Amino acid sequence: MSYPLFSVTVRDHMMIAHSFRGEVFGPARALHGATYVVDATFRRADLDEDGIVVDIARATQELSDVLGALNLRNLDDEPAFAGVNTTTEVLARVIADRLAERVHAGGLGESARGLAGITVTLHESHVAWASYERSL
Amino acid sequence: MSYPLFSVTVRDHMMIAHSFRGEVFGPARALHGATYVVDATFRRADLDEDGIVVDIARATQELSDVLGALNLRNLDDEPAFAGVNTTTEVLARVIADRLAERVHAGGLGESARGLAGITVTLHESHVAWASYERSL
Amino acid sequence: MSYPLFSVTVRDHMMIAHSFRGEVFGPARALHGATYVVDATFRRADLDEDGIVVDIARATQELSDVLGALNLRNLDDEPAFAGVNTTTEVLARVIADRLAERVHAGGLGESARGLAGITVTLHESHVAWASYERSL
Amino acid sequence: MSYPLFSVTVRDHMMIAHSFRGEVFGPARALHGATYVVDATFRRADLDEDGIVVDIARATQELSDVLGALNLRNLDDEPAFAGVNTTTEVLARVIADRLAERVHAGGLGESARGLAGITVTLHESHVAWASYERSL
Amino acid sequence: MSYPLFSVTVRDHMMIAHSFRGEVFGPARALHGATYVVDATFRRADLDEDGIVVDIARATQELSDVLGALNLRNLDDEPAFAGVNTTTEVLARVIADRLAERVHAGGLGESARGLAGITVTLHESHVAWASYERSL
Amino acid sequence: MSYPLFSVTVRDHMMIAHSFRGEVFGPARALHGATYVVDATFRRADLDEDGIVVDIARATQELSDVLGALNLRNLDDEPAFAGVNTTTEVLARVIADRLAERVHAGGLGESARGLAGITVTLHESHVAWASYERSL
Repeated sequence: MSYPLFSVTVRDHMMIAHSFRGEVFGPARALHGATYVVDATFRRADLDEDGIVVDIARATQELSDVLGALNLRNLDDEPAFAGVNTTTEVLARVIADRLAERVHAGGLGESARGLAGITVTLHESHVAWASYERSL
Repeated sequence: MSYPLFSVTVRDHMMIAHSFRGEVFGPARALHGATYVVDATFRRADLDEDGIVVDIARATQELSDVLGALNLRNLDDEPAFAGVNTTTEVLARVIADRLAERVHAGGLGESARGLAGITVTLHESHVAWASYERSL
Repeated sequence: MSYPLFSVTVRDHMMIAHSFRGEVFGPARALHGATYVVDATFRRADLDEDGIVVDIARATQELSDVLGALNLRNLDDEPAFAGVNTTTEVLARVIADRLAERVHAGGLGESARGLAGITVTLHESHVAWASYERSL
Repeated sequence: MSYPLFSVTVRDHMMIAHSFRGEVFGPARALHGATYVVDATFRRADLDEDGIVVDIARATQELSDVLGALNLRNLDDEPAFAGVNTTTEVLARVIADRLAERVHAGGLGESARGLAGITVTLHESHVAWASYERSL
Repeated sequence: MSYPLFSVTVRDHMMIAHSFRGEVFGPARALHGATYVVDATFRRADLDEDGIVVDIARATQELSDVLGALNLRNLDDEPAFAGVNTTTEVLARVIADRLAERVHAGGLGESARGLAGITVTLHESHVAWASYERSL
Repeated sequence: MSYPLFSVTVRDHMMIAHSFRGEVFGPARALHGATYVVDATFRRADLDEDGIVVDIARATQELSDVLGALNLRNLDDEPAFAGVNTTTEVLARVIADRLAERVHAGGLGESARGLAGITVTLHESHVAWASYERSL
């Protein structure tokens, strides 16, 4: 990481069902669910000419769209997750990667192509959360 | 409500799957899930001789036990909820009523029999929550 | 207040400019601004036949609409507030009253006519907030 | 409680040491400590002529003064608490009563004499808090 | 970033009015306002001889002073921001830079000269915030 | 820091008494106390074969054990802290180091040996916190 560094974070949430495979998960191998409060952070070394990292309204909309493709579903039934444990960590990566695709596709605007990285944090409760941090 | 009024609240959480029946629920009629951050409040007009409303350690344990009977499950499969929409409001009532039974059974100690009421609040996300408030 | 009592709360926010008149406000008599994180609570004695206090999606939409008429404005320029100090307390009442009108007009659905009351809380910072509580 | 009802809340904190006497406290009978994040709520049926429940700046100052008399102390050494368990509930009452005295003494201004009640909530952690609610 | 790394953060807030120029801002081009809850983080590789990163009381005072020069104002009227969009990101940089000047001037004490960097985060609502991170 | 980077954080708390030596601490040189809400973050570059950074249940248990050795004590009486100011920063380091020992000893499971680092944050109030970040 080099300085200076700017970032903007927007928050939304999704509510899903899923189950896990593997001894380590104990009782969480049964079908259960979670609300994930999701924070998406966009990083860059300098601001664009409007004085922003990214348009907060557009970032909020893109995050909402990405979560909308997962929200109110049983992830065990989603082909994209066949054979995959949809842990909080894995979902953080999936959401970050999908946001990265949207940045590259221009969904956050032309100046957002100057973004250096994305971090996605999923809060699964008031006492546990997970993050995935990547470059762009 | 009459004054003075003391209360103590303890917080825990549970992670469940469920679905709803009824037009009003829209896409939430599909199987999905939620983390509920649960606040259980115990009320009374005066303190016991130790200077407390209820023993916080015992209250925390009883709440944990009540939530343990629901946690990491698909509520659609629970006989107790057959034919019932397990909305946030309904679950708040279920948890409050089960805590009330434990108070009456002495699970929170003898002095807890002096409790006047219980409120249970379930936070389903950072932007929505529901409460159920009852007397004892 | 009589028991039992159910409630549902939804949260949104608005960002406004304003100034105050009166010695008590000191430096806040100058034009400044605030983000208000707004919690709207709907209360009733029993649940409707779907097992809810009010449809959270509709409540969220109605709150968003009410805040949308205030958001991103200088309240000093709004005719509705001519001669009125738009304190946190006053705005809580305005928002609660506008939500009440929408309940009466059927905006939250037919079963929402069974609502007993509304509370609106405006958080002006992490260390100060105000509420207005009314019957319906 | 009758409606309408306005309230204003201000938040501050204090950091104290203490110990408890009584079997129920278990390991908390040893000298330990707590940060209490303290919320003081002032209630009244209508607003004063400035459109406020109470001057937030003055309420904040009075709360700070009341907490200042307890902050950074070992409550076991305070004569005011000789023979008293300084539980979260007891401290909530002490702070509410001291704030009430200040209201009656005019410390929150003349219009604050119209206040109907005070609630004080002490958060002892992210998972436990206690309140005391009284009339004025 | 190299390890180990210590940091201390203190929180305060300010309430300002402003408007933005540029198509990207949409309705936020109108005069509006914001409460910014401001977190100032001070970083260093090792602790001073008292076992601290920086004196929390002094850090709190310096942050309060820096925010006091912005608080309860219309930033559109401030010469320091002529021709500048006072976005959350820009304000985070301004506050971090002013804190850095105070560190260099000795305002946080002699040992604070050992600080390696500062991060300032401004929360504009419960669903959006921005940070600026710099070295010292 | 290199990317990608995963992390998992779990939260717990402890309540201790202590005093400080040194002019900088002012009134905090007297015996007082604190609740520390403690966040322990575990970092690694990739997930294990179960799709996790670390087993959240085990991480929660290990953190609870580490805090249990400090909780409900007067740290001035602990031989481990003789001659040491138990500041928030120092305690963050102590807890991180003790967690690191447990990782190395296998307490978080075999796959946790792949962890790259630990960060521990102690919140001493709603307006102040400190962190210690180290590699493993």
